[in-house]
Amino acid sequence: MDYNSIFKAAIDRLHDEDRYRVFIDILRTKGQYPNARCFGGNGPKPITVWCSNDYLGMGQHPSVIAAMEEALHDVGAGSGGTRNIGGNTHYHVQLEAELASLHGKEAALLFTSGYVSNEAALSTLGKLLPGCVIFSDELNHASMIAGIKSSGCEKRIFRHNDLEHLEELLAAEDPETPKLIAFESVYSMDGDVAPIADICDLADRYGALTYLDEVHAVGMYGAHGGGISERDGVADRLTIIEGTLGKAFGVMGGYIAADKTIVDCIRSYAPGFIFTTSLSPVLVAGVLASVRHLKASNEERQAQQNAAAMLKAKFLDAGLPLMPSVTHIVPLLVGCPAKAKRISDILLAEYGFYVQPINYPTVPRGTERLRFTPGPTHSEALMDQLTTALVEVWDRLEMKKAA
Amino acid sequence: MDYNSIFKAAIDRLHDEDRYRVFIDILRTKGQYPNARCFGGNGPKPITVWCSNDYLGMGQHPSVIAAMEEALHDVGAGSGGTRNIGGNTHYHVQLEAELASLHGKEAALLFTSGYVSNEAALSTLGKLLPGCVIFSDELNHASMIAGIKSSGCEKRIFRHNDLEHLEELLAAEDPETPKLIAFESVYSMDGDVAPIADICDLADRYGALTYLDEVHAVGMYGAHGGGISERDGVADRLTIIEGTLGKAFGVMGGYIAADKTIVDCIRSYAPGFIFTTSLSPVLVAGVLASVRHLKASNEERQAQQNAAAMLKAKFLDAGLPLMPSVTHIVPLLVGCPAKAKRISDILLAEYGFYVQPINYPTVPRGTERLRFTPGPTHSEALMDQLTTALVEVWDRLEMKKAA
Ligand SMILES: Cc1ncc(COP(=O)(O)O)c(C=O)c1O
Ligand SMILES: Cc1ncc(COP(=O)(O)O)c(C=O)c1O
Repeated sequence: MDYNSIFKAAIDRLHDEDRYRVFIDILRTKGQYPNARCFGGNGPKPITVWCSNDYLGMGQHPSVIAAMEEALHDVGAGSGGTRNIGGNTHYHVQLEAELASLHGKEAALLFTSGYVSNEAALSTLGKLLPGCVIFSDELNHASMIAGIKSSGCEKRIFRHNDLEHLEELLAAEDPETPKLIAFESVYSMDGDVAPIADICDLADRYGALTYLDEVHAVGMYGAHGGGISERDGVADRLTIIEGTLGKAFGVMGGYIAADKTIVDCIRSYAPGFIFTTSLSPVLVAGVLASVRHLKASNEERQAQQNAAAMLKAKFLDAGLPLMPSVTHIVPLLVGCPAKAKRISDILLAEYGFYVQPINYPTVPRGTERLRFTPGPTHSEALMDQLTTALVEVWDRLEMKKAA
Repeated sequence: MDYNSIFKAAIDRLHDEDRYRVFIDILRTKGQYPNARCFGGNGPKPITVWCSNDYLGMGQHPSVIAAMEEALHDVGAGSGGTRNIGGNTHYHVQLEAELASLHGKEAALLFTSGYVSNEAALSTLGKLLPGCVIFSDELNHASMIAGIKSSGCEKRIFRHNDLEHLEELLAAEDPETPKLIAFESVYSMDGDVAPIADICDLADRYGALTYLDEVHAVGMYGAHGGGISERDGVADRLTIIEGTLGKAFGVMGGYIAADKTIVDCIRSYAPGFIFTTSLSPVLVAGVLASVRHLKASNEERQAQQNAAAMLKAKFLDAGLPLMPSVTHIVPLLVGCPAKAKRISDILLAEYGFYVQPINYPTVPRGTERLRFTPGPTHSEALMDQLTTALVEVWDRLEMKKAA
């Protein structure tokens, strides 16, 4: 067996398709976000980060840092065990209560990441419901797809946010078949939003459970940061709400919130929850501070919305090909993986602006893009510099502008 | 659909089988490990932890804490992105180099946990090798089983550490079929060790790749903490070595080490690596300090081995049913889930000793046990108290002692 040539060929395919990924090596500079240092070449060089998912800068917030420092000194670095075997700290218990209350649910359950929460929760739900059929939005995140696949359930894919198509698929199943509709609130690469209430109506009509990924919305929407489901007043209609602790909350980890029995089922049956060292108490303490802060403060949310609106307006004025987004996500269409990478490289090398090209499989081929996530700390002056740089690069590469 | 009664029934099954899990709510007391505080009932109560997988107490080590504090103040709480999109910090790059060198491999790759590293690496390897057959030890960890299952490969299960059976299964396949042998070095619930060199011999003879989970050995075996493969001088014969950062290294996270091309393949193709927020730089900084410390110091390893030998001797002298273990793991057989839980409850409530009962599905039914992990900070006086307590409880519950 010539294993090596098989592995080499797999890498060559990526180069051939211009989607071999090179990771940019950076360190953020605390207190000066969005500024960071980029390593490689001639040593660290200052850059401005435009593509972080620490959307509100909470990873730099003094009360988050203080809580983590306190936990570090009080209990140490790691939990030392799975949740069941020595790794259930009082911080975990408190954070689960806080997250349950954030979404108005009876209970919540922590996982090591948002990815793992989707994978573990969806696969376990599917296994517990005999003959369950899962209805999945075609643009659902890889972690949901992985969970659905490993559930072993039959899957029906509905066209993105298409209620008619979803209803058609629901109606085609036996009324006695258990059903689960899995979807996201904010789709993170386009910035559009699901019609949650309408999907819940369909779920009621056809007796389906609902599973909503609010990864790109928690902390950022709703009066307390409960996500789009809080903003729209529909949290109580959803069976399970899933979120991350690594984006707007600024730290790391994931969770689900639901009624007690469902949470207890996933706690008791999901291998991805059971057989792994629990989240470090240092992280959990930081998240606790972050969630509590964003429950009480609207300032960061408002500043983010203002920044996104301003950057969109500047891109439109400059004739840059802004993709339609109704949220804080600001995507520019490029449509070619090599060009997306080239623009990103020029911006970093010549302007010190870091925005990662987004290529297949993260987005469909032909829709390669640059995805900007302006936040409270991106000033208008920075936005002007960025817009000017983009126009210059767009011209240099003779790329199409908007009409 | 009455979903609720389905979920309720799933929970009832656990109660019926005496394996419904109640998490003990604790906080460790930094600097005083193995001491901790147990919450619930009448407020925090001091306890001694006997079942932590922070085997060497590195989660409390001053240089680990100092490194994490520095990173927290220098760069902040979270990475803010996936490895590809803004979440590749300089700490990650450095730690991967350090782990590659620890195992004498060209490259290493970080994951959010040991669970995810197994799941992501095995499923991706299996998918990249057309028609691959995976040979899996029957006692392999749930995370390897999950990875093998999601690889879609055919699986052959060989009897635990049984070379003859493994050879029989290897010989039965076509020589042209890609093959992968997946196994652990230290099996964490029994404390026995795989015959790594012999398995590598078989792999050579039948043209198979090898995948070794060293989760319960890294940091603890070998002159630099490279695991049993370092101790036995066979690291270079293994295709892939996998480890955790959450047990002996005391923090959280997981990794693989292998040659450059294989690491690049998994980096480029594994959804569980690609589509998730990267490890917090605070954790990575702590692990870096921990790995470096244990590369240079044998003190903690030696103290752990001494503690394990001493506790085993005391259990044997007292006639307690010690299971045969050749490592730092000290398991006592109970053989019944209700009794295992009862003993654990009494030890915690009456003696302040915390040891979690280990029940199905973590171990086979009928082999329920208590699993002790003595380390550098468990004094002889504590061991004597524990042994006395166990003998008292064993007598009280009229349980069999060893001959
Ligand atoms: C929609 C969606 N769900 C889940 C995840 C995974 O969350 P985490 O980064 O916490 O693993 C992500 C991104 O990482 C995501 O975009
Ligand atoms: C053999 C084995 N592999 C992998 C893991 C998972 O490692 P982690 O806790 O880092 O997820 C564990 C335990 O948790 C284990 O016992």
